[in-house]
Amino acid sequence: MAQSQAQATTQVVAGLQAEVNRLKHELETMQVADQIPSAGKTCTIADYLLERLVQLKVTEIFGVPGDFNLGFLDYIESSSKLEWAGNCNELNAAYAADGYARVKEGSLGVLVTTFGVGELSATNGIAGAFSERVPVLHIVGVPSTAQQKSKPMLHHTLGDGRYDAYLKAAEQFAISTASLQDKSTAPAEIDRLITECVVTARPVYLMLPTDLVHEQISSKRLLTPLNVEPPENDPEIENFVLDEIVKLIEEADRDVVLLVDACAIRHNVKKEVFEFAERTHFPVYSAPMGKTAIPEDYDRYGGIYVGTISRPEIKEKVESAKLLLSIGGLKSDFNTGNFTYQIPTTRTIELHSDHTRIRFAAYHGIGMKRLLPKLTHRMQPFREDAKALTVPKFTLPVPQEDNETISHLWLWPRVGQFFKKGDVIVAETGTSSFGILDVPLPGGSVFVSQILWGSIGWTVGSTLGAAIAARDIGLNRVILFVGDGSIQLTVQELSTMMRTGVKPIIFLLNNSGYTIERYLHGEKARYNDIINWEWTKLLETMGGVEGETCQSYTVRTKSELSALLDDAAFARADKIQLVEMMMPMHDAPRALKVQAELSGKMNKYVSVGVKTASDTL
Amino acid sequence: MAQSQAQATTQVVAGLQAEVNRLKHELETMQVADQIPSAGKTCTIADYLLERLVQLKVTEIFGVPGDFNLGFLDYIESSSKLEWAGNCNELNAAYAADGYARVKEGSLGVLVTTFGVGELSATNGIAGAFSERVPVLHIVGVPSTAQQKSKPMLHHTLGDGRYDAYLKAAEQFAISTASLQDKSTAPAEIDRLITECVVTARPVYLMLPTDLVHEQISSKRLLTPLNVEPPENDPEIENFVLDEIVKLIEEADRDVVLLVDACAIRHNVKKEVFEFAERTHFPVYSAPMGKTAIPEDYDRYGGIYVGTISRPEIKEKVESAKLLLSIGGLKSDFNTGNFTYQIPTTRTIELHSDHTRIRFAAYHGIGMKRLLPKLTHRMQPFREDAKALTVPKFTLPVPQEDNETISHLWLWPRVGQFFKKGDVIVAETGTSSFGILDVPLPGGSVFVSQILWGSIGWTVGSTLGAAIAARDIGLNRVILFVGDGSIQLTVQELSTMMRTGVKPIIFLLNNSGYTIERYLHGEKARYNDIINWEWTKLLETMGGVEGETCQSYTVRTKSELSALLDDAAFARADKIQLVEMMMPMHDAPRALKVQAELSGKMNKYVSVGVKTASDTL
Repeated sequence: MAQSQAQATTQVVAGLQAEVNRLKHELETMQVADQIPSAGKTCTIADYLLERLVQLKVTEIFGVPGDFNLGFLDYIESSSKLEWAGNCNELNAAYAADGYARVKEGSLGVLVTTFGVGELSATNGIAGAFSERVPVLHIVGVPSTAQQKSKPMLHHTLGDGRYDAYLKAAEQFAISTASLQDKSTAPAEIDRLITECVVTARPVYLMLPTDLVHEQISSKRLLTPLNVEPPENDPEIENFVLDEIVKLIEEADRDVVLLVDACAIRHNVKKEVFEFAERTHFPVYSAPMGKTAIPEDYDRYGGIYVGTISRPEIKEKVESAKLLLSIGGLKSDFNTGNFTYQIPTTRTIELHSDHTRIRFAAYHGIGMKRLLPKLTHRMQPFREDAKALTVPKFTLPVPQEDNETISHLWLWPRVGQFFKKGDVIVAETGTSSFGILDVPLPGGSVFVSQILWGSIGWTVGSTLGAAIAARDIGLNRVILFVGDGSIQLTVQELSTMMRTGVKPIIFLLNNSGYTIERYLHGEKARYNDIINWEWTKLLETMGGVEGETCQSYTVRTKSELSALLDDAAFARADKIQLVEMMMPMHDAPRALKVQAELSGKMNKYVSVGVKTASDTL
Repeated sequence: MAQSQAQATTQVVAGLQAEVNRLKHELETMQVADQIPSAGKTCTIADYLLERLVQLKVTEIFGVPGDFNLGFLDYIESSSKLEWAGNCNELNAAYAADGYARVKEGSLGVLVTTFGVGELSATNGIAGAFSERVPVLHIVGVPSTAQQKSKPMLHHTLGDGRYDAYLKAAEQFAISTASLQDKSTAPAEIDRLITECVVTARPVYLMLPTDLVHEQISSKRLLTPLNVEPPENDPEIENFVLDEIVKLIEEADRDVVLLVDACAIRHNVKKEVFEFAERTHFPVYSAPMGKTAIPEDYDRYGGIYVGTISRPEIKEKVESAKLLLSIGGLKSDFNTGNFTYQIPTTRTIELHSDHTRIRFAAYHGIGMKRLLPKLTHRMQPFREDAKALTVPKFTLPVPQEDNETISHLWLWPRVGQFFKKGDVIVAETGTSSFGILDVPLPGGSVFVSQILWGSIGWTVGSTLGAAIAARDIGLNRVILFVGDGSIQLTVQELSTMMRTGVKPIIFLLNNSGYTIERYLHGEKARYNDIINWEWTKLLETMGGVEGETCQSYTVRTKSELSALLDDAAFARADKIQLVEMMMPMHDAPRALKVQAELSGKMNKYVSVGVKTASDTL
């Protein structure tokens, strides 16, 4: 009886919600119509595409000029609403578009490259966005539609007439692709592609031929903004799912823990999750990739759960709960302590962007964005009871060490004290991303890392994009932690930071090479060494004016670093700053040491028949 | 009658040649058996693979460590015959492997990366090697065979279990691929792949799982060196082809011109071509991509033919010949003056690596490596007559200009005087590759450029590889010309040059951005600007000690540059040197200006409906 009443209420709510959405959409349409000068008339395909991006609040486009995209770049350059970042290379540009999209939730990253030589340099960046669920639109300037048919041996081709080879490669790393060939279908293709990009939070790939850029088309479709909200769930199935979830929560006697992960961020349900948590007061934990999905200063937030790598008090709390509600889970090796979750499926509910899992049952098409508010609505009665469940506060005090060496044990809690509300904290794969996990970040801060894809050097480009997005939406400082091995891969993008005027603080861990690799294998192998650079000369070499537009520091001791962190001028971050931190080669954060041990067991690195450098020590 | 006699002679020669090859191969086999300690016993798959590379005279392996290749890197590190370059990133490493293979003719370039994040960063470099016909073996360290079956969500995966996605992308840019899954088939797979790589002069892709690296296999196959010579031609067809060619040459009344192109270098027939030229004394010209295939100081060599972009006296000579014998032609836009050859097919014979074209007839399977010596043998009678045909000397005097600006018109002939026998000259796509075309290079020098693929930034990595190969085989200095826009893409590889101890001279054309793009479109557009760097601080920032291991210069005038070029200490090149040359933003070499005009007509860059920066000027 209570159940059918609840069902009825849910249906009413769903009906009202749909009406609200419809009205909002109509209102937006009218507002848009007022803003588009060419509305109802014609515009070029380039204008059409750019206007769609502006409607989705894109402000910056990343990429590198190349002769097949120059015509399109003219439109970007002449747009009053869009800026061209002008990256140093395409991989870095792809990383930047990814970083931009991560920070600017609900929008997307946009990358423009040229046929072959440009686009293929971006492959790793796009694949990373695919893996980590980041919406990036990759626009490739390609030969004219006539050339694509006649297939001359143009520069930037493979020399064998395969004009579709790059598209075939791109298909592996895009959720959808479009090769514009006809102006009549172009606007619909563009709309389809951008919509899929945002809704699925995955990269898409658009081939824009030199001749179509300037073609005139009707701009009528621009009057209707793209609907990038996820589709409505089937009400009958959704009600069934809600009933099942509520039943399990009741059976669990309110001993329920929320575990928030990457897709809660990527599919834009942070607000919905927080409302659910506040309503229920269920304890909330986060997976590494979900860090800052829930404000880490929230009093019902308990820290990072990562299987056997978790701090013991967190592991105990999460694994002993009668029911785990996982939201946006992405169970990769480094995100789960090498697949060491100790939570039976019979005690697990998983909410995803496009399906729901209750124990062993999958409900396809039931997405969390629509489901969560309804679930929250159903949860009201539990509030006061659930409050009784304790959540040990997530803290990390700075340890006392009787030496001046900047150790990982000391470094991470110490910089934790430096962070402020609204900071964007970017951590490179390796010592940085593992080190920062245990540090509670301030409310409203944003954590950016690449824990599944794990491409070293990614943060340098990503920081550029993140910083531009942060400036756009009024976040605070952007703070990067990166190792000396990693920064060498993508270092030239420091130059683009100065070109675009963003002012991140870059903490450079100088530990003489690829420390994460040393932990995995080859601790003392020469291939994990790098050549040391004059790090404090880097900014001025790449276009900065030391003391004016940039500032560089070297710190060798705890005292030196502490003094710098306490310096108000430094903390103000009114110019780009690079801090070289001298650290021991063989030190690493706790979590990395454990992870490396677990990974090493899985991968047979150690040889038997060969005498390696590491064997001899 | 004379014809059947000639045929008989040819058959005898072919028979003897085959016997010589067989005996050589047998001899090599015996020598190899003496050298391999493990011969006839067992070795690991890693050892097997590396021994095959050593047999093909590979000395250096390029790449970046990553956790799925660390086990394999141990074997490289412990090898006494192979060095690990330790590049800064994978794209640069791929470029370096490409540069190495170009200079070390008959051998191959080798690149090692890790699954996903590493290999995909190299995509553009590998695609470039495919396009430009360069043998590069790409070895990718991948998850174990067990993991490839169970498909866990490991880091560096796309998160959706598609463990074959990278292979599928790689297939677009490799002539052949192998995914090792079983130790019993591994050696044959490795042999097949390396052979195809060298014979076709194209990249190949090898997936090496972490567990197979250490597996023991029989080393018996190592006793037989790989046969990387092209296959014999079918004698009957070959004889027919020889007759046809001889007949056309006779009909042409010895008015025959040779045009040598890229594939003459890549398929290792420089020696055969030169012998043919010396025997016949036919005038020889070169396409841009074939530059230095024939020594440019050879007295029957007339310079670079590139369609309507050719210097008039060259264009006249080549296009008026009664018969053109094209050797290893690769008719791309930039290699042919935008497809402006004025030579009818009825007057053309084309020799290729795997087929021959006589006028409109194609003879598949008749490759030039085997054909050319036989053709040379047939040509003897023509020598004295053909000598009478004049070949205007290929020269480029330094013009007198009444100002001190370093113009392109003055620069290229001036640096031409600086080059020495055996120098390796690397020219970046853009002003450099166009500028150097008209400069006659000394005998024994090697020209390296990427005229078909045209990926900016390529030369920096490529110079590293070229310099290591040049050191290996005793060539002279390595001299790079690169623009400020281009070097920013790949700049970190200067660091690897210092790490590996090579000492190129780097001429950096500081002309404030992407000049080639300005000529194509957007002459004054901001997207063709770059941020200026402190170029003379670059080497010391990236690991050099100025004055000791590196030296940097800025030259602003003709006098300053001349003085430097005349300085014996500079010319000795006993440390890595970087020369920043200040040049006007809107100047360009003659050939680039013409090419840009031709390209512009083909590509509709210019928009009608948008007001661009360049329109307003």
